[in-house]
Amino acid sequence: MTGVRVAGVGLTEFGRHPERTGRDMFAEAALAARTDSSVPVDDVEEINYGNFMGSLAERQGHQAPLMAEMIGSRCSATRYEEACASAGVAIREAVRSIRSGENDVVLAGGCERMTNLSTAEVTEGLSTAADDLYEIRAGVTFPGAYALMARAYFDRFGGEREDLAHVAMKNHDNAMPNEYAQFHREITVEEALDAPMVSEPLGLFDACPVTDGASAVVLVSEEYAAANDLDAPVSVTGSGQGGDSLALQNRKQLAVTPATERAAAEAYEDAGVTADAVDLVEVHDCFTIAEVLAIEGLGFYDPGEGIGAARRGETTATGERPVNLSGGLKAKGHPVGATGGSQIAEMTRLLRGDHPNSEYVENATVGVTHNAGGTVASAVVHVLEVDR
Amino acid sequence: MTGVRVAGVGLTEFGRHPERTGRDMFAEAALAARTDSSVPVDDVEEINYGNFMGSLAERQGHQAPLMAEMIGSRCSATRYEEACASAGVAIREAVRSIRSGENDVVLAGGCERMTNLSTAEVTEGLSTAADDLYEIRAGVTFPGAYALMARAYFDRFGGEREDLAHVAMKNHDNAMPNEYAQFHREITVEEALDAPMVSEPLGLFDACPVTDGASAVVLVSEEYAAANDLDAPVSVTGSGQGGDSLALQNRKQLAVTPATERAAAEAYEDAGVTADAVDLVEVHDCFTIAEVLAIEGLGFYDPGEGIGAARRGETTATGERPVNLSGGLKAKGHPVGATGGSQIAEMTRLLRGDHPNSEYVENATVGVTHNAGGTVASAVVHVLEVDR
Repeated sequence: MTGVRVAGVGLTEFGRHPERTGRDMFAEAALAARTDSSVPVDDVEEINYGNFMGSLAERQGHQAPLMAEMIGSRCSATRYEEACASAGVAIREAVRSIRSGENDVVLAGGCERMTNLSTAEVTEGLSTAADDLYEIRAGVTFPGAYALMARAYFDRFGGEREDLAHVAMKNHDNAMPNEYAQFHREITVEEALDAPMVSEPLGLFDACPVTDGASAVVLVSEEYAAANDLDAPVSVTGSGQGGDSLALQNRKQLAVTPATERAAAEAYEDAGVTADAVDLVEVHDCFTIAEVLAIEGLGFYDPGEGIGAARRGETTATGERPVNLSGGLKAKGHPVGATGGSQIAEMTRLLRGDHPNSEYVENATVGVTHNAGGTVASAVVHVLEVDR
Repeated sequence: MTGVRVAGVGLTEFGRHPERTGRDMFAEAALAARTDSSVPVDDVEEINYGNFMGSLAERQGHQAPLMAEMIGSRCSATRYEEACASAGVAIREAVRSIRSGENDVVLAGGCERMTNLSTAEVTEGLSTAADDLYEIRAGVTFPGAYALMARAYFDRFGGEREDLAHVAMKNHDNAMPNEYAQFHREITVEEALDAPMVSEPLGLFDACPVTDGASAVVLVSEEYAAANDLDAPVSVTGSGQGGDSLALQNRKQLAVTPATERAAAEAYEDAGVTADAVDLVEVHDCFTIAEVLAIEGLGFYDPGEGIGAARRGETTATGERPVNLSGGLKAKGHPVGATGGSQIAEMTRLLRGDHPNSEYVENATVGVTHNAGGTVASAVVHVLEVDR
């Protein structure tokens, strides 16, 4: 089985770009990734594209061949939809495509256009990632669902809103130098605690923003990288995916995320690493409590221990294992279908040493990305390693 | 690389079932496929699910983990969206998953719920498979788009409406004994020619119906089939996928389908067969002209020669190479996200000898399925072979 190298990565600026179409944004990210990789477009054999709500936001389904066309290719192209983990599964299938020997060069990533919609339309669109029959019709929205998970966590393990405020503050700090981030604004714990409540116990700064943006990654086989003398020091060495019930009501408990646990176990085994070996992490912090659940599900903390990690400084840029050096979904932004690809792009930059925050992890060799769908009904985990 | 066996197939009755949810229909098809296969649910390692417009028709995205839940599984599950070829790509990824050695048992298929919508809503939903900016806003609908392709074909190669009427009549004949088909009604050439015009030159009987339904297939590795002593005589020996521009305006000509040609070339090479070796075919006849374009794109006829195939009796049940013995999309029905899986299920039944139309192909060993997205902006081709 061949190894998989990250030959290049590309991102658009994340933020409010209501005038830009999805095809426009993905083309920019894909061109940037190709330029970064030095791989000619004719060598791209497959395009794996993540998108969540394009049929609602742009009345545009069947986006994959459109995205191929936008970059001047007629290669086979497929859209993956796994709610907020759409690009994560697109990347995962690209890894499988290369490992199986079928293709040497796959372009994978995703895009989401959101801010052209009204707040009500976005809320309704996002809610289609939960169970329409048993959650949405009962009035559950995503802030509400994650608030239920936060309450369950506090009830079972303890913790308080101030712990979550430290997660938000950390991620805003990390986003400050990131040229692709939606927010470049430091916040304090007091600001977070004093902000308007969205759904008790989650306030405004516990939630990620609504974001437009795109991500793209060029993945190649070891053999292609060698034959073409590519500068591609980062490899994808592990990939895993896990599932859970779509509706929260069908889970035994809400303060743990078995889909993340399953995806992590598979990815670690695939890479031949343990959680202890991981130097830095990008996790799916659509809400601050989601970061806590993720670092526990990934095995970095025992259940109930992750809540204090940011407050204790263990997951900050200067901590022992930095989490979300990109700024995370919380401060970098969360263009739903692009996020899983953005995590791979940011981790690659961090490990290669060309990310504004690379200075904090100069000796890091192993990074993990974690992309989750809905209330973690699905999760995708990747392990990336760099030649040092 | 391991071989891939079809261990079992399942279908719901295709037709108008506006009261049934997508999850309900897919669960029925998946249970039928599991029962047919004798594979226990705990052995299913991955679910690949095709769906096109669930976020419009049911306000339900993120359907893959929901479908896993419906069959009592928490395995990793992914939704594929490639317009009308959604289940085709889901099947293709299942083949790759098994061949790569990652999994031994994958359940793949798809579902679409459509008749709960109004005609206007369905037309609008289906139109999202074309280019919103450059086709839909200019007034193009799918019957209109295929009418343009039919006109281009007639202009370039000749042919007339009566040729297409023979395609419709043939497929209605084939659907007669099929217990899963939407229509059990013979039609005559005169009826087809006298039917109301939908979009010149395509009349009512040139178009497939709006359909609810689901399909599921259990695919397993050769090793798993042997170890568990499964009765699984049919193998998937070839898989290919091709792309083209989304919008018709960006193609050099409309009377050929390069996406089909690319997918077929890849699938034939993969299986080590030529078009001449193929005994029977299930093609994507969303409109009668689409069947003509498909049998040419698949290499069974030179360009311009396929139009008369049904009229000459070559593609009928008793012809030399029967096309759409299931009844095709035209008469069996076209639940968009389910169709690619239905084709694999029907081909398997035909080759195994347990399809009502198996009597016509008793000595057949090689079958081909062809699933297309939109105006063939994407195409997926599979080769199936049976042990005799």
